[in-house]
Amino acid sequence: MTECLAYAVPEAHAPLAPMRLQRRALRADDVQIAIAYCGVCHSDLHYAHNDWKSSAFPLVPGHEIIGHVTAVGSAVSRYKVGDAVAVGCMVDSCQHCKPCAEGQEQLCVTLPTPTYNGKDRVDGERTFGGYAESIVVREKFVLRVPPKLDLKHAAPLLCAGITVWQPLRKYAVKQGTRLAVVGLGGLGHMAVKLARALGAEVTVITTSPNKADDARALGAHHVLLSKEPVAMQAAASSFDIILDTVPTRHDVNPYLMLLARGGTLVLIGALEPLEPIHGALLMINDRSIAGSLMGGLPATQELLEFCAEHQVLPECEMIAMQDINGAFERMQKNDVKYRFVIDMASLAL
Amino acid sequence: MTECLAYAVPEAHAPLAPMRLQRRALRADDVQIAIAYCGVCHSDLHYAHNDWKSSAFPLVPGHEIIGHVTAVGSAVSRYKVGDAVAVGCMVDSCQHCKPCAEGQEQLCVTLPTPTYNGKDRVDGERTFGGYAESIVVREKFVLRVPPKLDLKHAAPLLCAGITVWQPLRKYAVKQGTRLAVVGLGGLGHMAVKLARALGAEVTVITTSPNKADDARALGAHHVLLSKEPVAMQAAASSFDIILDTVPTRHDVNPYLMLLARGGTLVLIGALEPLEPIHGALLMINDRSIAGSLMGGLPATQELLEFCAEHQVLPECEMIAMQDINGAFERMQKNDVKYRFVIDMASLAL
Repeated sequence: MTECLAYAVPEAHAPLAPMRLQRRALRADDVQIAIAYCGVCHSDLHYAHNDWKSSAFPLVPGHEIIGHVTAVGSAVSRYKVGDAVAVGCMVDSCQHCKPCAEGQEQLCVTLPTPTYNGKDRVDGERTFGGYAESIVVREKFVLRVPPKLDLKHAAPLLCAGITVWQPLRKYAVKQGTRLAVVGLGGLGHMAVKLARALGAEVTVITTSPNKADDARALGAHHVLLSKEPVAMQAAASSFDIILDTVPTRHDVNPYLMLLARGGTLVLIGALEPLEPIHGALLMINDRSIAGSLMGGLPATQELLEFCAEHQVLPECEMIAMQDINGAFERMQKNDVKYRFVIDMASLAL
Repeated sequence: MTECLAYAVPEAHAPLAPMRLQRRALRADDVQIAIAYCGVCHSDLHYAHNDWKSSAFPLVPGHEIIGHVTAVGSAVSRYKVGDAVAVGCMVDSCQHCKPCAEGQEQLCVTLPTPTYNGKDRVDGERTFGGYAESIVVREKFVLRVPPKLDLKHAAPLLCAGITVWQPLRKYAVKQGTRLAVVGLGGLGHMAVKLARALGAEVTVITTSPNKADDARALGAHHVLLSKEPVAMQAAASSFDIILDTVPTRHDVNPYLMLLARGGTLVLIGALEPLEPIHGALLMINDRSIAGSLMGGLPATQELLEFCAEHQVLPECEMIAMQDINGAFERMQKNDVKYRFVIDMASLAL
């Protein structure tokens, strides 16, 4: 066992506070990682507030982890001490089912083990996330950070990045794809950057005219204001793919109208009921709504390589671990462009 | 111009009554058809009641038409007098757009011309449907009835049949596909028969235990009672495709839970808003909801050939034209197994 310093939510809605955490002794296939950076995901807030009624406390959030290998188990072959590595939303899965065999561990039929607020499959102990000095993770679930990828900006790729990369790849977004992004937060800003890097013609759909400049700065070719009926009408049936990153209940009907023949609206934000969908809007133009949730290990590794190769990096606002409660408050008000990243060096201060 | 006898709805909600109808003089590419049989579609009732606020009266319903060619225009090459032919929901489209070029005339960007309650693209006259002795239709929109297909039972293929055939083909339903059908009416019963003929493992999902025998008689392998929580739970994540034929507002969430990884619920009935869909049910298992509306000319011709080859025939209750008002009343109460078909010989009585 190794003790490390972490920041934990002691009970629902309570502020995060320092806590001593025991990381397990290395098993043969374990990798021990000194965490350098950890992204702050909106779901961290949901878990801290026990919004999904599944949180166990104390809870150590964090599933966008970047660090360096400090020790490896006896059977580990892919990593050695000093390697730059990453860990995302999952730290294990059954490894036997068809999705696992296909590298779609996020869809494991037994459900993957989440990086925090989960239960280890071997010893049954609770999992604790990346708001900590170190973590121990099964080799299979450790990703390699390519040398050309800036460690300081890579963390948000592990959740926000892969969540948009998965549908971008599944729907074969490429040169000429007419793609729209709804919502310009952690997921949305990555969707714009990645879709642009893939060659798509990118439109940001937003309610607020003052986000237009930001959208263009991120790489969007066009901005469509959803509260302007004339513009929305003019854009009817004009998109192949719409990535809908809105994280709360909302009305997708105005977006469905924008889908061209055979087009798909991919829901990646709202883990809750939507406003009633009009059946006719789906029937006209053979439209679909699809859900997508994270991505598997091969796709995540592919994303890291792609971002290194094309220098596509999340926009990060670096914070100290000690500033996490203020960051949570600002995140709740959408006051972040576009992702907080904790510099774990601050824990040593 | 040719005069013929028809049955028309004189105004919204009024009973149908006989009416003299002028069919246009043949253009070069026109085919004149003596109607032998016409199916009674649920949408005929919607138009008669002006449910969609688009009906013009008097209105002659009917878009499941079977008959024989009685005359052809000078440029018609594919049909001759005496041929058994069929007409479905459309009698024209732009013939220039991409969907039309791909034989997806139902998705014509200018919208196809409906068989009734539409406007002819050449002379601007209103279109009148198949509750009539004869009809004149552009050759391109006339389908051939294969010799082996029983004329008396073929009419419902032209709307109910193609509406289910289109998604069955699009989603490549075949041997081994785990397919469920929700709703056992005109569409649903054809979905069971066609999916079975394609080799799928077919389950009918129904609220009423007393439909179980009917479902099995139509070819369903299994019946799942949606009001039995234990059975529904046991069927979680077990279908590749669900064809949802329910024609009114309903809750699809219980059906979404039944979709296996990558599965799709295809909405073919409800041209209205659904109960709120839970986003998480789409994200888990990479599920989708897709709409589908009718089908194009090549797919409809393919369906007619398939049904002739495999002797897949709709269940028809034959009625006289004079009995149409009673049939409408029974259809409104779902008291039909599974499609009324008007025998047009009754018009001569």
